[in-house]
Amino acid sequence: MYVGLDIGGTKCAAILADEKGEIVGRTELATDGEVPAEAFVFELIGKQKKLIKQHKVDPKSIAGIGISCGGPLDRKAGVILRPPNLPKWEAVPIKKIVEENFPGIPVFVENDANATALAEWKFGAGRGVNTMAFVTMGTGVGAGLILDGKLYHGTNDMAGEVGHQTILIDGPKCGCGKRGCLEALVSGPAIGRMAQERLEFGRGKRMVELAGGKATNVTAKHVVEAAREGDALAITIINDVGTYLGMGLANLIMIINPERIVLGTIAVHAGDLLLNPTGVALREFAWPRSLEVCEVVPAELGDRAQDLAAIVLPMIGDE
Amino acid sequence: MYVGLDIGGTKCAAILADEKGEIVGRTELATDGEVPAEAFVFELIGKQKKLIKQHKVDPKSIAGIGISCGGPLDRKAGVILRPPNLPKWEAVPIKKIVEENFPGIPVFVENDANATALAEWKFGAGRGVNTMAFVTMGTGVGAGLILDGKLYHGTNDMAGEVGHQTILIDGPKCGCGKRGCLEALVSGPAIGRMAQERLEFGRGKRMVELAGGKATNVTAKHVVEAAREGDALAITIINDVGTYLGMGLANLIMIINPERIVLGTIAVHAGDLLLNPTGVALREFAWPRSLEVCEVVPAELGDRAQDLAAIVLPMIGDE
Repeated sequence: MYVGLDIGGTKCAAILADEKGEIVGRTELATDGEVPAEAFVFELIGKQKKLIKQHKVDPKSIAGIGISCGGPLDRKAGVILRPPNLPKWEAVPIKKIVEENFPGIPVFVENDANATALAEWKFGAGRGVNTMAFVTMGTGVGAGLILDGKLYHGTNDMAGEVGHQTILIDGPKCGCGKRGCLEALVSGPAIGRMAQERLEFGRGKRMVELAGGKATNVTAKHVVEAAREGDALAITIINDVGTYLGMGLANLIMIINPERIVLGTIAVHAGDLLLNPTGVALREFAWPRSLEVCEVVPAELGDRAQDLAAIVLPMIGDE
Repeated sequence: MYVGLDIGGTKCAAILADEKGEIVGRTELATDGEVPAEAFVFELIGKQKKLIKQHKVDPKSIAGIGISCGGPLDRKAGVILRPPNLPKWEAVPIKKIVEENFPGIPVFVENDANATALAEWKFGAGRGVNTMAFVTMGTGVGAGLILDGKLYHGTNDMAGEVGHQTILIDGPKCGCGKRGCLEALVSGPAIGRMAQERLEFGRGKRMVELAGGKATNVTAKHVVEAAREGDALAITIINDVGTYLGMGLANLIMIINPERIVLGTIAVHAGDLLLNPTGVALREFAWPRSLEVCEVVPAELGDRAQDLAAIVLPMIGDE
């Protein structure tokens, strides 16, 4: 049996899975940033213990515990530093707390982007390859890199910040403080902002309708939906996003020469609408010899990604 | 004892080195593209055998043979495909030929950028780190990547093409056929071209003088020399080059999070003249947390780099 704890900014989950990664039990908990961090962690551990009891699992049969959580993180020490969405969480020694509650069982901590990369690699769209990048595309844009069959962390766990390569030297301001980052051009908020800036002379009306009549409420979701319905401005925006995405992925391909790139969230929702212009840009910005060995595909795990991200950690161990 | 063969477009060398990598014997040979490839390789092997005899080396004491050569290369098969400077060389099975001439001794083949990265890592500016990039900056711009203590090749040996990430979406045409590649902005030919394009209204006179009075003869070397003497236009060009280089290295830092970047050739010649503006750009385009763990330094091996590139291969083996 494997135990997983998924710690996110809006919800947490305690997960129980068998040797094959099949989830046999699961309890969810809304993350409450007002409760002191340690009290909240104890509540989550309590839910996990209840789950273990309910399913009549012998604690001795638990092979390992995985904790997947949003960064920043001191991975080696197993300390959650200061998640942006949980301002009251400050240096929570999550690994130590869990170890004390489950003595003798190995505990593995990983940031959620890396853990999800491992989950897609073992159970999803990354199965069977030796070298891949999992690129999240939601509020932020980041990557988990599996190189030569191993998760790659870099010198101080900062590898894979694919979203913060510079794509346009004088591009829009990024949330990170830099300019022209890939994230500032293809993330959910970036797509929403690009749409809002370009709604003029009655163009893109459908996006505003979908947003309840208010231009300032237009989000990436409305842009994708309007594009799917054929709205010309929305299609132009998605094409631009695909071009920037293709340029960023081409740079990644030229540097790490992966066998597969798995794209999450927005790419999953938008599908070929986004992947077609991305493919055109990839052929423009990457060499054929590097591109011909690299598939670019949407993620497969969907709602199961976060649970499996926690469960996969003890399955892989320190490999 | 280790044996090395360095095969380059203008010269080749047979090298003999001891267990510490100290070179004990060496013979150079001008590369002759008119001689059939196999005949030329036999001549080089003959030089090597003579060297071994001269130095009274017992063939049984040779622990391994390294072959460093310009790409493109089928590394695993040990075949030199078609070097751009040697049009008559076509699919030369270099590994097999050398194995037949030195039966029982393991032979390792690697492209010269990767082999030089290993040499700088073991003997030069990369000593002591676990994760580094060696970036060549000459006619071309490429990199050898050492990740987690191992040379990283990628899916089909195409990793490390740092010079062909796109830096300017509508930038100048690159020799590779794409546009706006780092190589098209910071390589030797790119610097020469940038200077030639901007010599006007009598500005940059010193570069033309250094080039023997002919603007079309201005090369990167003249730009660096004129900048060192204080020529304003040459300094501006080197500053631009440093900015583009810093942006490209920042992207590399954000993706692979190295502990050190070792810069070859032009960076060694230009020194702080180039490294200062590069540092300014690095602070603009990379995150402090990734930058603070990464030193950017010039290569150290100079003229010895190519010999040691061949010798280091059997020393490291298949590690």
